[in-house]
Amino acid sequence: MPSVRFLTAAMSSTEQSPSPPLPNRSAEVRRDAIFDRWVLISPARARRPSDFKSHSPASSSSASGNPNPKPSCAFCAGREGECAPEIFRIPPSSSADWKIRVIENLYPALRRDAEPPDPSDGLAAAGTGRCAVTGFGFHDVVIETPDHSVHLPDLSPEEVGEVLLAYKQRIFQLARLGSIKYVQVFKNYGASAGASMAHSHSQIMGLPLVPPLVSSRLDSMKKFYDMTGKCSLCEVQSEDILVCDTVHYFAIVPFAASYPFEVWIVPRDHTAHFHEIDHEKAVDLGGLLKLVLQKLSKQLNDPPYNLMIQTAPFDLSTSCTPYTHWFLQILPHLNVIGGFEIATGCFINPVFPEDAAKILREVDCSK
Amino acid sequence: MPSVRFLTAAMSSTEQSPSPPLPNRSAEVRRDAIFDRWVLISPARARRPSDFKSHSPASSSSASGNPNPKPSCAFCAGREGECAPEIFRIPPSSSADWKIRVIENLYPALRRDAEPPDPSDGLAAAGTGRCAVTGFGFHDVVIETPDHSVHLPDLSPEEVGEVLLAYKQRIFQLARLGSIKYVQVFKNYGASAGASMAHSHSQIMGLPLVPPLVSSRLDSMKKFYDMTGKCSLCEVQSEDILVCDTVHYFAIVPFAASYPFEVWIVPRDHTAHFHEIDHEKAVDLGGLLKLVLQKLSKQLNDPPYNLMIQTAPFDLSTSCTPYTHWFLQILPHLNVIGGFEIATGCFINPVFPEDAAKILREVDCSK
Repeated sequence: MPSVRFLTAAMSSTEQSPSPPLPNRSAEVRRDAIFDRWVLISPARARRPSDFKSHSPASSSSASGNPNPKPSCAFCAGREGECAPEIFRIPPSSSADWKIRVIENLYPALRRDAEPPDPSDGLAAAGTGRCAVTGFGFHDVVIETPDHSVHLPDLSPEEVGEVLLAYKQRIFQLARLGSIKYVQVFKNYGASAGASMAHSHSQIMGLPLVPPLVSSRLDSMKKFYDMTGKCSLCEVQSEDILVCDTVHYFAIVPFAASYPFEVWIVPRDHTAHFHEIDHEKAVDLGGLLKLVLQKLSKQLNDPPYNLMIQTAPFDLSTSCTPYTHWFLQILPHLNVIGGFEIATGCFINPVFPEDAAKILREVDCSK
Repeated sequence: MPSVRFLTAAMSSTEQSPSPPLPNRSAEVRRDAIFDRWVLISPARARRPSDFKSHSPASSSSASGNPNPKPSCAFCAGREGECAPEIFRIPPSSSADWKIRVIENLYPALRRDAEPPDPSDGLAAAGTGRCAVTGFGFHDVVIETPDHSVHLPDLSPEEVGEVLLAYKQRIFQLARLGSIKYVQVFKNYGASAGASMAHSHSQIMGLPLVPPLVSSRLDSMKKFYDMTGKCSLCEVQSEDILVCDTVHYFAIVPFAASYPFEVWIVPRDHTAHFHEIDHEKAVDLGGLLKLVLQKLSKQLNDPPYNLMIQTAPFDLSTSCTPYTHWFLQILPHLNVIGGFEIATGCFINPVFPEDAAKILREVDCSK
């Protein structure tokens, strides 16, 4: 579905759902208090929210859906020698029966052997219009299972928890180096979400600088805190946007979701860094993440998605902790980002978050 | 091509170019002085810059490449009655022999009949964590030609200039309303760039507020001006990144391009607003835009792209004019934006801008 719709009368009749549409809701412009950006919530009049499905499911066998079939998969058990060097495995013995492997990326976007940039480099050269520093950083891959046919939501809550604890372990290693300021953990699922391997995996990038969107997210959360004295994520009113929850976490479709069926998983405890997670919470989060991914897959036809851990920089001053709260963001790919969104930073979401949350809440994954 | 590469040894040998690679260049992190963001310039080791091609050319007849075949196209001459109301046509008579039509979008993302938001709405409600205003605004479509088989670069420089002057005319209409603060002109070409109609067209959205990325672009240009006393676009050193130029404009691959083969067309004269363009400059720009699109199409296998006019808000204080300079941005779609880019705002560009510029400079479109 194109993000900016301008169907003609002729097209709307062919694309219209055979079921009667929901009562018309007026478009709204909503501001997201975490990212300080606007979203145009503009219901797709030709489709009901429950009709949204992925047209290119990640599990399809087409070239775009399945980028790397099993016969050539170096992430599978028994082909470890074809990969870049291993950093560690779970369990940590040298046993062939590994469950998770954290390895270097053979073609990293940043180089661990480059010279870390001088913190003053960026500022010094900015006045020339050309500012460049060395591409220093870490780019690792987490192979989440030895089995090519198993995907993250197929694992047990405990096993998903072990993947989360592998992230934690690697983040602590990067923190100890001193040269890394921020770690981005992310998972691209499906070729159209950026994955080039079908075997279940995620990625960890250690950056020598704090990325601009992380800074602006913290600035935005500070703004809310300065205005209200409260943390914007602790204060989320979640009744109508709740998808599901556990003892330690709740999953919502955020009030100003940029993408249709976007889900955030938020820790109930006010915590700045993901890597503060302990074993009990990791298993609890593992179960909730598994359920959310199952719901998205069942409702939306196994959509490609991006999963991102939105955490804080390592060097976070104590004055920032009252408003800094990590969360996990999942963006299913159901529409295309076009020139309007790229130029303005305003996204167009055709599904009201309350409607998306209700639909996901009602998806029964027990059958 | 996935944006974050982590090809294994096994994959790299299969995906490697048969030609010898260019000498290895080290990854760099570059800061863009206009958008104040970072780009990881990280050469794809398995591919030479000249090997980049679109795998899903916009002109392909597949469902994803050609969203709207001719038989059902309401943008074609003779089917005007199937479209939403017309705003104006070029030439402006009621003649059937129109060259350009500007029409309303039948399914607009913003509604012209909604109540314009009160400027204080956004601020007043921000403290609650839920901030929403009415979805007021304008969303129009520019049909660039009556002929389904003609695309923008097929038109003559004069005809492309007439499309640009149609944008100008509509922007002036929106400016006179008083309720519109910013106008975004954009073109999505090809389904994977967001187009839902194959018939050549672009879109114009009139917004009641200044979008966040526009504000941050102006802030970034102000920062450069405060540091140097100069406009960042007037100061561009273009020798090694030049693609082509004319009397009034130059086309470059920007030093910190976010996308491979991204092109900016910049007016030589320091001008804040696109809609200050006159007839002579529109024809000059029309010729340059035609040439750039031809070069991209020939070199990159007719890639889908987004074209955006990066201009200034209507109410621009005179203190801002020394550093505000409009330009036209073209982003070919050759890679996928994944979780890393979405979370951090840092893009990964596998082609050094100097290499991309050299390749595009040498594409000969006279044959």
